[in-house]
Amino acid sequence: MTDGKEELVLVAGGAGFIGSHLCRALLGQGRRVVCLDNLQTARPVNLRLFERHPGFEFIEADVVDPLPPSLLERTRQFTRIYNLACAASPPQYQADPEHTMLTNVVGTHHLLRLAEEAGARFLLSSTSEVYGDPEAHPQREDYRGWVSCTGPRACYDEGKRAAEAMTFDYARMGRAEVRVARIFNTYGPQMRPDDGRVVSNLVCQALSGREITVYGDGSQTRSFCYISDMVDGLMRLMEHDGVGMEPVNLGNPTEMTVNELLNHILDLTGATAPVVHKPLPIDDPRRRRPEISTARKLLDWSPRVPLEEGLAATCAWFASELGAGAPVEGKARIKSPVAAG
Amino acid sequence: MTDGKEELVLVAGGAGFIGSHLCRALLGQGRRVVCLDNLQTARPVNLRLFERHPGFEFIEADVVDPLPPSLLERTRQFTRIYNLACAASPPQYQADPEHTMLTNVVGTHHLLRLAEEAGARFLLSSTSEVYGDPEAHPQREDYRGWVSCTGPRACYDEGKRAAEAMTFDYARMGRAEVRVARIFNTYGPQMRPDDGRVVSNLVCQALSGREITVYGDGSQTRSFCYISDMVDGLMRLMEHDGVGMEPVNLGNPTEMTVNELLNHILDLTGATAPVVHKPLPIDDPRRRRPEISTARKLLDWSPRVPLEEGLAATCAWFASELGAGAPVEGKARIKSPVAAG
Repeated sequence: MTDGKEELVLVAGGAGFIGSHLCRALLGQGRRVVCLDNLQTARPVNLRLFERHPGFEFIEADVVDPLPPSLLERTRQFTRIYNLACAASPPQYQADPEHTMLTNVVGTHHLLRLAEEAGARFLLSSTSEVYGDPEAHPQREDYRGWVSCTGPRACYDEGKRAAEAMTFDYARMGRAEVRVARIFNTYGPQMRPDDGRVVSNLVCQALSGREITVYGDGSQTRSFCYISDMVDGLMRLMEHDGVGMEPVNLGNPTEMTVNELLNHILDLTGATAPVVHKPLPIDDPRRRRPEISTARKLLDWSPRVPLEEGLAATCAWFASELGAGAPVEGKARIKSPVAAG
Repeated sequence: MTDGKEELVLVAGGAGFIGSHLCRALLGQGRRVVCLDNLQTARPVNLRLFERHPGFEFIEADVVDPLPPSLLERTRQFTRIYNLACAASPPQYQADPEHTMLTNVVGTHHLLRLAEEAGARFLLSSTSEVYGDPEAHPQREDYRGWVSCTGPRACYDEGKRAAEAMTFDYARMGRAEVRVARIFNTYGPQMRPDDGRVVSNLVCQALSGREITVYGDGSQTRSFCYISDMVDGLMRLMEHDGVGMEPVNLGNPTEMTVNELLNHILDLTGATAPVVHKPLPIDDPRRRRPEISTARKLLDWSPRVPLEEGLAATCAWFASELGAGAPVEGKARIKSPVAAG
């Protein structure tokens, strides 16, 4: 399969938030990793911790374009392909909706063809957004969703649904062995401060002393999974041999309102800035909580890092990143994000 | 806009069932038509009635590939682009699900870029399949659907949803003026006998004296729109200036069970072959009826051809096509399919 050469793991989108943590964890297991990223929304600095690792290689390329020769020439060495390539925060994926759709459909197609050619196992990072603004709660994998295919979020939501469809078609046709993870809200160090999602927004605003923005009345709920738990789940899903034609929810089922999250962050940072309410974005989901019994049973996986701990590590990292002097509790008791996985 | 040259209408998928009727109707209005088709599921014979018309040109090409130079060199002449390119019957679109998805997403993308470059108005032929196996009945345009994005129909259903998303994004960005028609079951002369859908299946089986196949117990419902009504609706939607960011259902709201349809066909053909029941296909919709108040209000459109009349014309056409000698009632009172629109 690998012509006697070393086996490689491809991580498309490997310079992004989840991708960079995944690359680091794979390297920690002694895997050789090729990271493909267009650096559109990634933070290249995310790679700093391991960019000189002998098992790591970075290729700057966009999965929408034909895959680069430097990658294709080693096709038969790839045994695992993780597709994490796509801007994932609404302001970012809506900035170029055409590219978002193509990243999900054409990018996934390019990587599925590579997986077929390589005989590699393929994992698609899908999303809880395939459930849209859900009418079922919590969201089980067999819930078909409540997604507007005409609205401003559709480029991402429908792009991921289309990517899932194509991924399962490859499996149905026997062209590739596939895994599909539906990733729920994930947070932790190395998010972009300007990511535009609720954890990074609130933490950065709290740390900077700026006024704090809450969309709607803050009663909408989310469930936040710490990054080390998510990376652990993705790797278990990829390596488990008994996964069939089913997507698997990965996320933390501890649900809270945005107001409760804010209170945790205010406690941790000691911030006292005023809270300003703005209108909810179009099609913003009111409730979001994963039903993770599939992952529990199949992968023996469930999140282990409690919110207080993960949030403290995240606040500490943002404080250091922003050079903010705001007090951050609990900094000392936090293990390194990846080691915690 | 057209450099003084004659304005052109592009019909992608123009050799297919609906596409060929549309080409003929456009030519009947004095429009110049370029028909693009890969002839994958089209019947080239569909073009026979007008292929020598001076206003008609056929280009064999696949919308998944880059558009051919013979088309691109006249970009600025196109004022209207109809995208009807995609196999539409489950056995056909499931035969190559990868190509089905790419036709919908990459094909639509190519044609949207052409529309932008040309300054042409773009119409996407979407489908009632975006509603999946609907839990709301009848289906209004704001119903978000009950579609499995992991099943064997997803390549088509999710492909169309993704195509809608991209089409509306082009409009939102001001890159093209767009129309999206959600087409419900349509029937009439020039369907493929081996199309695999219920009207052509039942009519051809009845005419040939073979045993007649009903999937499930036949209590599932459909609503059948005659082709001339559909073509009329598509052209009205394209030409109406007051359509905003909304998809428009086009279909006949007269709902009936498959068993009722079968009885009509048995009456018309005098067939007496035995009826055999087979299991329902996966994710087959149980009910399907368009709510067409948007089309009524906006386009002053509603179907005018009653089922008995349309079905008689269809049976007559299939009888002639198959060389079958079965008796066909009502043949004489049927106007030509396009003239009826």
